[in-house]
Amino acid sequence: MKQLSDLQAIISAEVKQLNFPSYPAELYEPIKYILSLGGKRMRPALLLMACDLFGGDVNKAIPPALAIEVFHNFTLMHDDIMDNAPLRRGKTTVHERWNPNVGILSGDVMLIEGYKLMMQVDNAILRRILDIFNTTAVGVCEGQQLDMEFEKRINVNIEEYITMIRLKTAVVLGGALQIGAIIGGADTNDADLIYTFGEQLGIAFQLQDDILDVYGNPEKFGKQVGGDIMSNKKTFLLIKALELADPSQAAELNKWLNIQQPDQNEKVIAFTGIYNQLQVRQYAEKAMQAYADKAFTALDAINLPDEHKQYLRDFADGLMVREN
Amino acid sequence: MKQLSDLQAIISAEVKQLNFPSYPAELYEPIKYILSLGGKRMRPALLLMACDLFGGDVNKAIPPALAIEVFHNFTLMHDDIMDNAPLRRGKTTVHERWNPNVGILSGDVMLIEGYKLMMQVDNAILRRILDIFNTTAVGVCEGQQLDMEFEKRINVNIEEYITMIRLKTAVVLGGALQIGAIIGGADTNDADLIYTFGEQLGIAFQLQDDILDVYGNPEKFGKQVGGDIMSNKKTFLLIKALELADPSQAAELNKWLNIQQPDQNEKVIAFTGIYNQLQVRQYAEKAMQAYADKAFTALDAINLPDEHKQYLRDFADGLMVREN
Repeated sequence: MKQLSDLQAIISAEVKQLNFPSYPAELYEPIKYILSLGGKRMRPALLLMACDLFGGDVNKAIPPALAIEVFHNFTLMHDDIMDNAPLRRGKTTVHERWNPNVGILSGDVMLIEGYKLMMQVDNAILRRILDIFNTTAVGVCEGQQLDMEFEKRINVNIEEYITMIRLKTAVVLGGALQIGAIIGGADTNDADLIYTFGEQLGIAFQLQDDILDVYGNPEKFGKQVGGDIMSNKKTFLLIKALELADPSQAAELNKWLNIQQPDQNEKVIAFTGIYNQLQVRQYAEKAMQAYADKAFTALDAINLPDEHKQYLRDFADGLMVREN
Repeated sequence: MKQLSDLQAIISAEVKQLNFPSYPAELYEPIKYILSLGGKRMRPALLLMACDLFGGDVNKAIPPALAIEVFHNFTLMHDDIMDNAPLRRGKTTVHERWNPNVGILSGDVMLIEGYKLMMQVDNAILRRILDIFNTTAVGVCEGQQLDMEFEKRINVNIEEYITMIRLKTAVVLGGALQIGAIIGGADTNDADLIYTFGEQLGIAFQLQDDILDVYGNPEKFGKQVGGDIMSNKKTFLLIKALELADPSQAAELNKWLNIQQPDQNEKVIAFTGIYNQLQVRQYAEKAMQAYADKAFTALDAINLPDEHKQYLRDFADGLMVREN
């Protein structure tokens, strides 16, 4: 059985080998550029791991794994335009380095290139694989749409928020694992279970991200503490706090949410104080644990030797305690 | 054998029946909106016609035909953003009615929905159909990229221009016919020939469009005469004129190309005068005829009864003499 780090290394090497036409240069250069910015290649590596766990030939899973990585980077390229983001992994975003039109069109081609790579599977599983890919891709778009809508809305509830993060980030983890499992020879039931494992773990991971933004060790977390608070991001913590707040706490939160150029330090301190009073961290941790439990329950039910499943447990444990 | 107008009516009715989720509304409403703006539904109708000509069941070709129409409208939605176009078929464009982000993301989902529809074919032909769809889709993106680049470049030559219009508009006609033919049971050779027919006819049709912009009867053409001249569009006529111009004609053309707010009437008169002196209309008509001839040569070689092929000849004749 291959280690996750080995699978990530395989993907990193294969991404470098990906061939795109040289003409028109402005269409294909941005694709090479965004793929060269790195990243942990976690989604494609998980696809390979799922294939490996079910006894499949990892080499046969490489093109679909690259499809997932190309697709993921397509969503980043378009999301960066929509979010008006100047930087991606510390480098200039495509729409800034070229222009938004280049970002739109290169992204479109990336989505098609994703399909071309995903189609490099045996005929016997082609339709099943593409059905999963379609569902995953639509889900990510729906999640991005909800994310943008929630930025402008005040009254987002926890259920809506969970739906959004499930679609925007968790279904790709589930879909990658499910596709890898099918290539590896998993039956429908096991493939569905590994999807659930990935999806529920993805939700738990996103909730952990929300918690770490406020309560994480900045050295381990690698991001600015309070970044979500500074940008008024509607995280689990903020939504829960707005739900539980008494009138004076609500007034305080809303005051800060509406100041155009606040003192960010004071804002983070004020938010964190109210979060502490309302114990939203505990709510978030409870929810996170519940989704992690669902993930592990699905994993337990998969018809695989326990030592194979241990790889996914180790991966999940690594994710869930990584930063804190 | 069904008439083109009947096939267009089938598509119009089927487009109205297309179902999309209601949530998130901002993601799916723009798709329903752009599909409701009408259009001649020529591409999907040709797909059905090709299926019909080869003796296939037209009903089985309806989902892939809808895929071509959804894909075409995806390209329109994204092109309108890139071209900053306020109107599409006389109605407000999606990015104007909502905003550019909505246009980007709804367009992305449309491309995926196109794949979902295109996959509704028998397993035996799934991979062939999707390969053609992928090639078509990439071609259209490359064509749009070249079109945008050529707007900013001075030295576009005729060969580059033909490549651009082939990719941007002609490959979809070819691809639609080829997909329909395969669903209808055509062999590889005939499917390739009908692709060539559509592609070469598409180039001829675009060249006719360039000619009609300057020399068309405005009542029949339905567009403002000289619109391409007013917008400095690099058509076959302009490229050929710049190629053939003597120094004084070149200076005159470049003067008009660089005036920020010209008297458009005078500009059209000046351009048309130089076009007439250089006889670029004749060059364009000769090129148009050459591409039409290639289309008809491919059509002649298809292994179908002549009375079946007559439907495509009639269609092509209708296209090529329609406006003048």
